[in-house]
Amino acid sequence: MAFALDRSPDTGGQPVYQQIAAHFRGEIEAGRLGAGDRLPTIRELARTLGVNRDTVAIAYDELSRTGFIEATVGRGTFVRQPLESEASRASAPFEPVLSPLVDRLLDFERARVRYAAPAATVPLHSLVPDPTLYPVDEFRRALNRVLGERGSELLRYGAAQGDAALRAALAERLRATGMNATADSVTLTQGASEGIVLALRLFAAAGDAVAVEEPTYHNVLGALAAQGLRAVPVPMRGGAPDLVALERVLERADVKAFYTMPTFHNPLGTSTPLAHRRALLAIAAAAGKPVIEDAYEMDLRFAGKAVPPLAALDSRGLVVQLTSFSKSLFPGARVGAIAARGRVVDALLALKHASDLGGSQVLQAALAAFVVDGGYERHLTKVRRTLLRRRDAMLDALAREMPDGVHWTEPEGGLQLWVELPDSFDTAELLPDAVRAGVLFAPGFQFRHDRRPSSGLRLSLALADGAEICRGVAALARVVRERLRAAPLREIDERVSV
Amino acid sequence: MAFALDRSPDTGGQPVYQQIAAHFRGEIEAGRLGAGDRLPTIRELARTLGVNRDTVAIAYDELSRTGFIEATVGRGTFVRQPLESEASRASAPFEPVLSPLVDRLLDFERARVRYAAPAATVPLHSLVPDPTLYPVDEFRRALNRVLGERGSELLRYGAAQGDAALRAALAERLRATGMNATADSVTLTQGASEGIVLALRLFAAAGDAVAVEEPTYHNVLGALAAQGLRAVPVPMRGGAPDLVALERVLERADVKAFYTMPTFHNPLGTSTPLAHRRALLAIAAAAGKPVIEDAYEMDLRFAGKAVPPLAALDSRGLVVQLTSFSKSLFPGARVGAIAARGRVVDALLALKHASDLGGSQVLQAALAAFVVDGGYERHLTKVRRTLLRRRDAMLDALAREMPDGVHWTEPEGGLQLWVELPDSFDTAELLPDAVRAGVLFAPGFQFRHDRRPSSGLRLSLALADGAEICRGVAALARVVRERLRAAPLREIDERVSV
Repeated sequence: MAFALDRSPDTGGQPVYQQIAAHFRGEIEAGRLGAGDRLPTIRELARTLGVNRDTVAIAYDELSRTGFIEATVGRGTFVRQPLESEASRASAPFEPVLSPLVDRLLDFERARVRYAAPAATVPLHSLVPDPTLYPVDEFRRALNRVLGERGSELLRYGAAQGDAALRAALAERLRATGMNATADSVTLTQGASEGIVLALRLFAAAGDAVAVEEPTYHNVLGALAAQGLRAVPVPMRGGAPDLVALERVLERADVKAFYTMPTFHNPLGTSTPLAHRRALLAIAAAAGKPVIEDAYEMDLRFAGKAVPPLAALDSRGLVVQLTSFSKSLFPGARVGAIAARGRVVDALLALKHASDLGGSQVLQAALAAFVVDGGYERHLTKVRRTLLRRRDAMLDALAREMPDGVHWTEPEGGLQLWVELPDSFDTAELLPDAVRAGVLFAPGFQFRHDRRPSSGLRLSLALADGAEICRGVAALARVVRERLRAAPLREIDERVSV
Repeated sequence: MAFALDRSPDTGGQPVYQQIAAHFRGEIEAGRLGAGDRLPTIRELARTLGVNRDTVAIAYDELSRTGFIEATVGRGTFVRQPLESEASRASAPFEPVLSPLVDRLLDFERARVRYAAPAATVPLHSLVPDPTLYPVDEFRRALNRVLGERGSELLRYGAAQGDAALRAALAERLRATGMNATADSVTLTQGASEGIVLALRLFAAAGDAVAVEEPTYHNVLGALAAQGLRAVPVPMRGGAPDLVALERVLERADVKAFYTMPTFHNPLGTSTPLAHRRALLAIAAAAGKPVIEDAYEMDLRFAGKAVPPLAALDSRGLVVQLTSFSKSLFPGARVGAIAARGRVVDALLALKHASDLGGSQVLQAALAAFVVDGGYERHLTKVRRTLLRRRDAMLDALAREMPDGVHWTEPEGGLQLWVELPDSFDTAELLPDAVRAGVLFAPGFQFRHDRRPSSGLRLSLALADGAEICRGVAALARVVRERLRAAPLREIDERVSV
């Protein structure tokens, strides 16, 4: 009864006791050891293998706990009789029937863009805020302070609504935008992402539809798929949702709400003008449909004049507003918020409680301390300055490098802008060339509800500095010009042929 | 144009600029100021009110941003013309149509037990682990260490599956129970609560049913309601699910999975014996239905011999297993885990990503450091010792104080045991008397899928020490005896009349 053990401590291999247990499990499963067969004593086997007796004892203990062997005091250790049903079925792996919603979600996931590229590739694809700007030490100090002051209380379950100090601090910030918010109207979420899911679930259940802008944030399309909800597109025109289309869509009985990003739209980078916001609310009111305002980048305005959020213009309670620290500070605290009113707040709390009982008080309390101390405002000042410089670098580079027929948006805040190539382009198909040329971007198809090809693409200010932006935009422009030379646009052809 | 301002700095009242803005908003909404009316200049109003000019400027800015007034350079500041549609509708609050699922969930929430009691009442109702035992300083040091070592990387979005170090540490713990787990098979969740929701969603969508033990964990009933799923009860008999009933229920096409707590069942405190576990798996295999094993208190065994979890007995992949730090360490990190295999892991990742993009890496990494350093095992040793003492105190007190006809379970781990009063009792109805007598318990009805009255109740070892447990059980026994005296049991009546 000797067998090979792998004893090299650094190979990351199995611990010796697990190797022993695995050996016997294998022998039993292969039928070389049968029910009633006697195993060597712990002392014998330890001597044979040259290992500690405790090691063998732990292995036997595991085999015993998992039902492969049983020890009888005074008689020895024997292979157990397996249950008939288990023995016959043990080899056939079980194929669980997944919910049809999950199957559809897996299809959705498979179509996700994978950005595999060498490390030096300029990252103009991602909206993860720049880690070199995170106030790590300040946040660590805030964590220490709140844990020191409030101790174990912070490690209990918190209220499903979230830490009261952070809700109060957020409500104060929201009031400064003209909203009528209080700590009671704010519910904390795991980033805006969970906020989106909870807001959708407030109004819509599997089989229902939700109106979304087209293009829209791709993860909203994923959230809709995961909930069994259909996306009904409202086209963006001139940087704001088309109100005629919105009115028509909201009249449909199956459409339960409108999800919109009026401030620094993702992926467009545009903002809905004030008058347009008012008209949008009037349309939603006339249709009797709630509006989910995703104000995830509201704090990142670096140019132009602030426009009040929809929630500040809404005196009736049409709007449920999502905010987040993920883009303006860092995503790692996983803290966002929903501002709502009345019965909607009760419904949110019930949904949040049924989802996870509530978020982490520790991180919420540390964020509250950071906000109240002015750390967040100081950080915003720094980030806005950085983003303005990067936007200007990007606009300059685009103007300098891009051929005629290419257009782009000029955001006044946030992390992204949109580039529209001539109609003949499919930017998903362009991406591999761009990666080879040294730049990543987010192709437009993924922001469409049906993922049909798009000639648009999203560029990000989040991760690249001014020099990288110049290099990245130049590389992208080179790829675009090469394509145009290889296959000139039809409209150019026609102009030539006339 | 003078009006009262509240300037007391310590009253927590509105900032002065907000009071000014609110005044004008009120005047406009009440019709005392109409479109085109001129507001005082900033300089005039600042002098009249005796405030800084900046304060007035901020107030006007807010009113302008929210569309109440507009400033025209050189002419002054005027009340704006409101849009007709807004003006006429502004006063009618909007009543959003909530999803029918949410309405049902709100009904569920309204029936929740509220435990309002004086502070000195003995808390035998709650399974929140004892905050006096939390290793706050050790955890704070772990947080500091990981933030110091990994810095901003930890504050980015993490992988949806969760921190790799914690997944590896958990997989190692699971392997020690006989499971074939690796870091790749473990997905981190917001406590077992989110794990329950994700596991249910894997297999069942709105309209489907899920088999649950009766009694079962009340928040699972809430999670089912929130997902539009029906609960089909499998009665607990002798501390384990009735297998005949299970077989019959799992044959139903609408029943998509079985949710079970084989180790330290909530609310019963019992564990399913080994042979029973094997038979349960054979039944699930024969029916082709997956098993959701909630092993939330698995680490809290303080007596008896460990029984392998269902996931360790399952060679085929029938079982999705939930674990959590919430009961064994503290709930505030909001970390639990799901161990699964193959395609189910992909599905979980897709669901987790669509729910919130993933949890907080910071807390996960700190927990990983705490586990790897042995802090978690040290904590478990201390907690198990404490719980064993408390369990013994409770069993002694029950034996000493309770009248004949009262029975209870004797848990070998976990935080709770179950007391069954004579059939004539409705423990929900008994609770107010118990609170008056100085003790809280969890009445049994809430653990039933239909919430029909129950003569059972759950007592907790989590928050009360030995002396409090004695006092609490004595108080409860007093209330029970008083009831029996006031309305003797029928079976006693009959015995007397024979």
